[in-house]
Amino acid sequence: MKAVMIGAGNVATNLVRALATAGVEVVQVYSRTLPHARELAATVGACASDSLDGVVRDADIYIISVSDDAIAGVVEAVPDNGAVWVHTSGSTSVTVFAGRRERYGVFYPMQSFSKQIAADFADVPFFIEAESEATAVMVEGLARQLSRRVFRATSDQRRRLHIAAVFACNFANHMWTLAGDVLGEAGLPFDVMLPLISTTVDKLKLLPPAESQTGPAVRHDVNVMHSHIAMLDEEKAAIYKILSDSIIKRHEQN
Amino acid sequence: MKAVMIGAGNVATNLVRALATAGVEVVQVYSRTLPHARELAATVGACASDSLDGVVRDADIYIISVSDDAIAGVVEAVPDNGAVWVHTSGSTSVTVFAGRRERYGVFYPMQSFSKQIAADFADVPFFIEAESEATAVMVEGLARQLSRRVFRATSDQRRRLHIAAVFACNFANHMWTLAGDVLGEAGLPFDVMLPLISTTVDKLKLLPPAESQTGPAVRHDVNVMHSHIAMLDEEKAAIYKILSDSIIKRHEQN
Repeated sequence: MKAVMIGAGNVATNLVRALATAGVEVVQVYSRTLPHARELAATVGACASDSLDGVVRDADIYIISVSDDAIAGVVEAVPDNGAVWVHTSGSTSVTVFAGRRERYGVFYPMQSFSKQIAADFADVPFFIEAESEATAVMVEGLARQLSRRVFRATSDQRRRLHIAAVFACNFANHMWTLAGDVLGEAGLPFDVMLPLISTTVDKLKLLPPAESQTGPAVRHDVNVMHSHIAMLDEEKAAIYKILSDSIIKRHEQN
Repeated sequence: MKAVMIGAGNVATNLVRALATAGVEVVQVYSRTLPHARELAATVGACASDSLDGVVRDADIYIISVSDDAIAGVVEAVPDNGAVWVHTSGSTSVTVFAGRRERYGVFYPMQSFSKQIAADFADVPFFIEAESEATAVMVEGLARQLSRRVFRATSDQRRRLHIAAVFACNFANHMWTLAGDVLGEAGLPFDVMLPLISTTVDKLKLLPPAESQTGPAVRHDVNVMHSHIAMLDEEKAAIYKILSDSIIKRHEQN
């Protein structure tokens, strides 16, 4: 199978490496910045292009891995050639291809990639969507060459995945920022919290998070909650209250 | 050094094991439930007691590792013997000993312990407080036999540590519960999120959390935030808003 990668960023870099390792022939890498295209292409013996007009026509699959707002531009700039075209975005609908491609889909690996660290794709969940069952099977097969965890997901499901990731990663990370503020006020370094955070995360592999919830809210320890709120600034106090209320409500229901 | 452990719960069980391994002679384990005292005492060849009157008088240090609301009762029930008395609680003030002991302090290992899994204490942060510098040095020395990370912390600092742990662990865990709800509505299992959560946590070891914050709020991506809020129930929408606002505010300041 011959593949063309449109893009040379974090996702593209990791995918190109992994596809080549899995035996897929990556024949070309496009980037609007030629040195980026060349650098990535060189890692797998592909050719490089910084012109969408120069994208080869005879590959089996074209993987668009550019920023969300640049996907439609790529689809418009290159005429259809009957091959399968996919994008790798979690938040762009599959309909970005509608009317402009015959065979198209989504090939979304849900992970945070960086160029510096080669991702191990084996456990990265892939979410697949396509315009037809035949295309879905083809794209799914490609994903299975990289990962054990391949799912079909509609664009609506991908939107919900993104929301879940905002809670699970972006908001959890902000909780650590706020914890760091409180520690800083006490003259303590953030890293004193790392062992306890690791233990909390390790439990996720054993139990659903609701079942391992601990702390004053789930214990209904009103004295402790009040004493904590009294020590916080207005913003953190409001967050402490709304999250404690949510925990209390959630665990009353169970 | 001879130690007596008052308590046979999760913290006591892990401490007794670790102290014995470090060469401290644990001479007695007390629990109000005799089989619990016997079970733990047997692991290190100590004697067991279910009577506070039966606690031996000639140890060098007495470690009270019972529930927070039982600490004062233990202190009152046993007369002072001039040895060092400490408790292991993150949220009880050192003043619980005031007027009832000459030499006393706090010996708080900040980790979530379970009887089933033997904790590795090497990286567990210990927080030490005492009535005098001499006692602090003695208790600190004991902690250093178990861990590389020993801090002095006042009772006020320990209260702030506890608040930080509520944010970093209890609230982060609740974010995962809410993410699981959203995934469940999309028909997807929670564990699709584990690789992304692991990556987010791994970054904490490299960068302060504020510096690795990602997501629509830190990008000021108002369209994505509005579309997410529109898909959430009232409770999750309110949490999404307050946390996004907090992220925006935080990153404007920086």
